[in-house]
Amino acid sequence: MAVPSTRVPRRVLREFHPCDTTVNVGPIKIGQGQLTLIAGPCAVENEEQLLPLAQRLAESGAHLLRGGAYKPRTSPYDFQGLGEPALRLLARAREQTGLPIVTEAVDEASLERVVEYADVVQIGARNMHNFALLKRAGRCGRPVFLKRGFSATLEDLLLAAEYVLDAGNPDVILCERGIRTFSDHSRFTLDLAILPRLAELSHLPVFVDPSHASGRASSVAPLALAAVAAGADGVMLEVHPEPERALSDGVQSLRPDQFPALAAELTDLACRVRRMREAVS
Amino acid sequence: MAVPSTRVPRRVLREFHPCDTTVNVGPIKIGQGQLTLIAGPCAVENEEQLLPLAQRLAESGAHLLRGGAYKPRTSPYDFQGLGEPALRLLARAREQTGLPIVTEAVDEASLERVVEYADVVQIGARNMHNFALLKRAGRCGRPVFLKRGFSATLEDLLLAAEYVLDAGNPDVILCERGIRTFSDHSRFTLDLAILPRLAELSHLPVFVDPSHASGRASSVAPLALAAVAAGADGVMLEVHPEPERALSDGVQSLRPDQFPALAAELTDLACRVRRMREAVS
Amino acid sequence: MAVPSTRVPRRVLREFHPCDTTVNVGPIKIGQGQLTLIAGPCAVENEEQLLPLAQRLAESGAHLLRGGAYKPRTSPYDFQGLGEPALRLLARAREQTGLPIVTEAVDEASLERVVEYADVVQIGARNMHNFALLKRAGRCGRPVFLKRGFSATLEDLLLAAEYVLDAGNPDVILCERGIRTFSDHSRFTLDLAILPRLAELSHLPVFVDPSHASGRASSVAPLALAAVAAGADGVMLEVHPEPERALSDGVQSLRPDQFPALAAELTDLACRVRRMREAVS
Amino acid sequence: MAVPSTRVPRRVLREFHPCDTTVNVGPIKIGQGQLTLIAGPCAVENEEQLLPLAQRLAESGAHLLRGGAYKPRTSPYDFQGLGEPALRLLARAREQTGLPIVTEAVDEASLERVVEYADVVQIGARNMHNFALLKRAGRCGRPVFLKRGFSATLEDLLLAAEYVLDAGNPDVILCERGIRTFSDHSRFTLDLAILPRLAELSHLPVFVDPSHASGRASSVAPLALAAVAAGADGVMLEVHPEPERALSDGVQSLRPDQFPALAAELTDLACRVRRMREAVS
Repeated sequence: MAVPSTRVPRRVLREFHPCDTTVNVGPIKIGQGQLTLIAGPCAVENEEQLLPLAQRLAESGAHLLRGGAYKPRTSPYDFQGLGEPALRLLARAREQTGLPIVTEAVDEASLERVVEYADVVQIGARNMHNFALLKRAGRCGRPVFLKRGFSATLEDLLLAAEYVLDAGNPDVILCERGIRTFSDHSRFTLDLAILPRLAELSHLPVFVDPSHASGRASSVAPLALAAVAAGADGVMLEVHPEPERALSDGVQSLRPDQFPALAAELTDLACRVRRMREAVS
Repeated sequence: MAVPSTRVPRRVLREFHPCDTTVNVGPIKIGQGQLTLIAGPCAVENEEQLLPLAQRLAESGAHLLRGGAYKPRTSPYDFQGLGEPALRLLARAREQTGLPIVTEAVDEASLERVVEYADVVQIGARNMHNFALLKRAGRCGRPVFLKRGFSATLEDLLLAAEYVLDAGNPDVILCERGIRTFSDHSRFTLDLAILPRLAELSHLPVFVDPSHASGRASSVAPLALAAVAAGADGVMLEVHPEPERALSDGVQSLRPDQFPALAAELTDLACRVRRMREAVS
Repeated sequence: MAVPSTRVPRRVLREFHPCDTTVNVGPIKIGQGQLTLIAGPCAVENEEQLLPLAQRLAESGAHLLRGGAYKPRTSPYDFQGLGEPALRLLARAREQTGLPIVTEAVDEASLERVVEYADVVQIGARNMHNFALLKRAGRCGRPVFLKRGFSATLEDLLLAAEYVLDAGNPDVILCERGIRTFSDHSRFTLDLAILPRLAELSHLPVFVDPSHASGRASSVAPLALAAVAAGADGVMLEVHPEPERALSDGVQSLRPDQFPALAAELTDLACRVRRMREAVS
Repeated sequence: MAVPSTRVPRRVLREFHPCDTTVNVGPIKIGQGQLTLIAGPCAVENEEQLLPLAQRLAESGAHLLRGGAYKPRTSPYDFQGLGEPALRLLARAREQTGLPIVTEAVDEASLERVVEYADVVQIGARNMHNFALLKRAGRCGRPVFLKRGFSATLEDLLLAAEYVLDAGNPDVILCERGIRTFSDHSRFTLDLAILPRLAELSHLPVFVDPSHASGRASSVAPLALAAVAAGADGVMLEVHPEPERALSDGVQSLRPDQFPALAAELTDLACRVRRMREAVS
């Protein structure tokens, strides 16, 4: 089993920084014990899609709003995101709802734009090994939401975070979103066993994205509950007003009417799990 | 994503058998809504190890007792189990505690012995593709606890169960116990996403074994909670009176004093999850 | 990188047995430098399929004839092999052609039958972890052709062979046949890098099966050539008189008219590779 | 098995462009039937390391010189490459030897520098999904050497190449360099089965890098031979004057005295394989 080498002091490790890191995003304190819910569409498509959805999410338990402006897509012919107009829509949604914004930067140019609008900068799984982007994210002045790469080991993920911390940015949130395996009943294999191990080794908060991991809307609720039970500090959920018409990843998106009950249950479970784990440990 | 072909009617599928299967083991009804806990040592070692442990487990929430008499071991030089003397010890533990017994058969000869003593016959991950053994298990007259192979797809697992059902035995319990991947922070990668998919496709009860999956005692509780949150019908846990002296797999075994609180929390969580999932769905 | 532990002397390792093992099958000396070709259908189907094919293979470079009598099949509804009638047909083919026979045993009962007819007993990938069968194969009095399991590490494979050697049978041939990975352009991922590593660590001869690994007839020749270039002692090839009508695995079978040229090229390449590797090393 | 969807015409596919693509690099015609050898150190370290080595490689069969100026490293504390001074050393080596230069760009800034000096721009495995960099590489005016990502499917790799072609650059060379699997006897699992499949689907030349794939110097020669046997258009080999003192990846580097014989054998094998494959097909 991989125990990261510690020849060089590592900023991500508990031995360097024993206490849990809290990442403050406006009034939200990520990693301080309360479950944080990030919700929103895979990609921002237009005003009609985003604004009413953001309103519903804000009213039903979401703490941050997600929505892609720049989309890393496997094919050059797939929808690549609206770019800056999407960022402006996200900013309007924040004005109307008060929800801070998480959105992805895919390169240096988009990072510059994203930093102007977003509260948290996402680095996606495909860029977890893009060390140039990680270094820039380390100097961007915003918390970084860093997704595990498709084939990243625990140590790879921690070292990617180390790039950001080493560049001067202590506010990193890790996110497990499934790894590539032979298993074919879900899009990726959600590796929840990384959660207790990360909690032992690192002080950084850890989220789980069950939407991208499973690729199936009907698996999102059970896996979100499982993530919270395994100790996740937060969950990122894709919600779209009309999943069947989504420009990307509709097949894994929840409908808005599915969100409030799930949010309430996840929050409730998180409280109980915290108490349970104290009882068990 | 694999949707099992249905050219041939499949006894494991809901389209053939829509209602959930309940497997009755004495008074215990597996798969009927209440969480079932199986606990015990990896291998039966001697009377002093097994009997007091069984007593403690019976008093603190276990529903069945596990313990290996025949151990499939990667190396011919590792401890291979006590064989029939272990079965006799398990039978004595049952007499004293009332706990039904689950133990593994590794070939035809051991299956014959196991059937004489055990209430449930386990077919391990290494034998999930041992079709001759599956057919025999299908005629053995005992419920079968079937573990997913290290590299079995969902369809492979269902077809392995189909061998048992097709041979005349309707009482099969499936068990997710981790798959082999590049991920090295745990011994195997626990694939909880298979749970909601199995529940959609099949009527058979599904358990999770977080002990073998993680290979780390400190990960067992969070993963057991996650399994229940994801909808597991039961959990199998390794418990050993002195993990550091265990003849096999001590590194992943809970101590007896860790079991009662975990059992209580798992049971409590299962009730809440059932209510939650009704609320969410 | 896995260096097998050597706390316990291991019969499969060079440190226990420095010289290459030669497995004698009639006049054929496997592992002594000359490339050995095993060819034949996935499953024996009937006399018309087998006898003329065996004749053609014998005339065009095959050293042993393969053909399944007992087939381990993922689904209980797939063709499971003809059983003993197939063994009798294989024996007749041997009489007519002089080719020794390799065929698979899937359990103790079939092993008893196979040993009566076959020159070499195959243990398939799905049974590499069937330790009871390995022990029996170790006492069966025939050379054993042992295929790597779908998710077996190098050490798992060597320890499976150790079961056979430890039971008294020194004549084991290892066979790489692809592992399960996310890669989806072939049925399994042929892991040729195991060849030089096995050659360093073990004295046993190593074969490659490109037919099952790739699952595509058009990939068989390039992968067979690659296997020989990487140092394989032999290659196992599926050949069927009418691949499109085969009862199993037709999609990966060569036609008989494709075999002679390939056999000649593989043999020629093996000679050159032996000389090359002497030049390079 | 994945057959890339063809709803959108794909520039990488044979159905769009039936004939093999030849990439011209000075006098070297890559993909036109003759084997191309790229050799050199993992990272450029200093003049004493690079210039005499380049001379020896030029005299013994190398067609292009490789050497990293910008190194993508998992840890921020590992040697990250000399940057532009390394590019100047590579340019001097080219002057002295006539060997064209292949070196990696890891972001936009390094791409601009690399384009000024290199004949071929490498995009490494960690950046195969860095679509912004791929688009820039598509407008950089140099051939692109594109390595398969650690967990890229065949379709992912072709679509990454499509980004470059779609941006206007037809000169792409694909490179298989091993994928991440559970297999632990080599650093990555070299997937040679992708070669025949790529040759069927795409017109682009395909190389193999056995040094990074295996991570073991003693496996490089057998895997390089296997790659050529499987139909590779070229091989990339790491060679270092003193592997044990290399600043990165010394454990997998050949010594300069191992290169000439291997180069000669690979070239000879490539000729024979071309003839063989004509005979076999």
